[in-house]
Amino acid sequence: MKDLLSSIKPAVRQVQAYTLKHFEARVKVNQNENPFDMPETIKRAVANSMSGRAWSRYPAFVPAELGARLARFANWKSDGILVGNGSNELIEAVLMVTVEPGRRVAIPQPTFTLYKMLTTILGGDSDEVCLTPELAFDVPRLVEAANHADVTILCSPNNPTGCNLNLNALREILKAATGMVVVDEAYHEFSRQSAVPLLEEFEHLVVLRTFSKAMAMAGLRVGYLLGHPLVVEQIAKAKLPYNLNIFSMTAAEAAVEHFALLQPQIELLIEERERLLGELQRTPGVTVYPSQANFIAFKTESPAAKVFDALYAGGVLVRDISRYPMLENFLRVSVGAPQENDQFLESLRKFLASRN
Amino acid sequence: MKDLLSSIKPAVRQVQAYTLKHFEARVKVNQNENPFDMPETIKRAVANSMSGRAWSRYPAFVPAELGARLARFANWKSDGILVGNGSNELIEAVLMVTVEPGRRVAIPQPTFTLYKMLTTILGGDSDEVCLTPELAFDVPRLVEAANHADVTILCSPNNPTGCNLNLNALREILKAATGMVVVDEAYHEFSRQSAVPLLEEFEHLVVLRTFSKAMAMAGLRVGYLLGHPLVVEQIAKAKLPYNLNIFSMTAAEAAVEHFALLQPQIELLIEERERLLGELQRTPGVTVYPSQANFIAFKTESPAAKVFDALYAGGVLVRDISRYPMLENFLRVSVGAPQENDQFLESLRKFLASRN
Repeated sequence: MKDLLSSIKPAVRQVQAYTLKHFEARVKVNQNENPFDMPETIKRAVANSMSGRAWSRYPAFVPAELGARLARFANWKSDGILVGNGSNELIEAVLMVTVEPGRRVAIPQPTFTLYKMLTTILGGDSDEVCLTPELAFDVPRLVEAANHADVTILCSPNNPTGCNLNLNALREILKAATGMVVVDEAYHEFSRQSAVPLLEEFEHLVVLRTFSKAMAMAGLRVGYLLGHPLVVEQIAKAKLPYNLNIFSMTAAEAAVEHFALLQPQIELLIEERERLLGELQRTPGVTVYPSQANFIAFKTESPAAKVFDALYAGGVLVRDISRYPMLENFLRVSVGAPQENDQFLESLRKFLASRN
Repeated sequence: MKDLLSSIKPAVRQVQAYTLKHFEARVKVNQNENPFDMPETIKRAVANSMSGRAWSRYPAFVPAELGARLARFANWKSDGILVGNGSNELIEAVLMVTVEPGRRVAIPQPTFTLYKMLTTILGGDSDEVCLTPELAFDVPRLVEAANHADVTILCSPNNPTGCNLNLNALREILKAATGMVVVDEAYHEFSRQSAVPLLEEFEHLVVLRTFSKAMAMAGLRVGYLLGHPLVVEQIAKAKLPYNLNIFSMTAAEAAVEHFALLQPQIELLIEERERLLGELQRTPGVTVYPSQANFIAFKTESPAAKVFDALYAGGVLVRDISRYPMLENFLRVSVGAPQENDQFLESLRKFLASRN
């Protein structure tokens, strides 16, 4: 052993690790979490169902019950569904079975950082397609990129900008695509749109969903993937056995069963997003873009770090997204509970007033 | 899209998926699980610590408390520890940062199937080193292989055979190795031996551990990796953010804190393994090999499927391992509670008697 890191692939050594500094705050609107916790009814149902279960026994090899419930919930075939330890694990599995040196992955930019990071670790090339200056998807350029890519990954609504890809545009991309098209719809409940109805027509479409946002289960790590059964069978080869623990599995089953309890929280968050967007549009010194997600990207004329610090001093924790491409001076605020949103607006306006 | 699976890498299409048929039985000794569930004291501690926690909030980005406890527990540096969703996830992360086409991974055979499967998916070459005819590690050949490998993976005690690699042999391999050496010690508590004391001396050594066996938490999916902090930093790049859910994290913290409650269960399992080994050695028609794990590999003169069926008819579920290289006619039985082991022995003897 001459060099301690000689076993590590060169592409990996060059990658900057994904890190997040830890902050605590009274109003935590930095991770697009659901501000309303899982309803107590669901928590109790999970506790009841877990009591007496042995922790020492492996989960079922195939989570058949959860798979069946998700099939009914999402209106898709149960053999076309794969459950993951968060959708992150499924993004990884998709890329592991498709990406190697010489393979090309089309990715809009700015978007969720994991797609490019994993592509690089796996030795593939990222073909990055910038959003338009208005921070919308550049559909003609995406069509072109998908036509030359082994995989195209679209986060819609897009994190961290909130822009949505409508189904007509998605159809165009799907028709042009020469490889797999992955739609990460982590925030789809807030856009009232899903790509799932296109699965029957487009066999190379793969849809990812998560329980971390609208479903209020970020702490439990559950995601799922929907696709053609033959494609899912291949992706499953890179999904680790026993990836979902019995507690999270039980919670996901309960969340789907009691979805009617979560629905009003989602509706309220959509209303609050619209209210927050309106307020920000009316606030001088703030530039804001439409969002179909549970967060809003905005900028001021000040450096993002300065705005971040001022809000944090006021007890409001947002996300500084200014290091993403195109997003100089930008921050992202998750839609919180009504009072949290008021607190955010008040702190932001106080900061802006202090700058005049 | 001409071919539905054209996006899937050829190496992946060739891989046989890892599957497991589902069986239920009164005596379940097929997955090397701990037959004694997590003690109630620990379960209650977890429930208390979880009550009032929001499910809707992400786990901490760095599981600092669990990391600190594991550092004290394993006697290693906390910045040299990485926590995973089961050790499977950490095996995957290690291979993702080290394996690509042109890279070579040395693996004993027969062993845990995931190492070779992930190596293939990542486009690497497996250099398989067979165990000796006595099902022991072939140390001279492993030394040679490690000398030409980018990564060497050793499962010790080895699944599914139970053989152990002593620390002197491991030192020889470490000295000869040109790349990383990974010791998966999922079963180390049953061998009363660990490679962790060698970490200080050998910076290219990486050790994997799990909470699924001795720690009685297979259902909750927790594992950890120990290595040089600079190596761990690289491996961490392929570990997904928020990989461990808050319930399992809390349970792992409690298990480490209350380890004294688990220790007597482990001692009993070691005693039972020795008893079971002795009984099997004294049973005509059975060939058995030494094991330092919580399971025993054995063979009879009958096809494994026949033995499996006979035991299953008697309510005892073992694992047919006859499709692994070198293991024709072999089965694997996990060490259960004393009565379960009696039941297994009785069913096996009944089968053998019926053959005479």
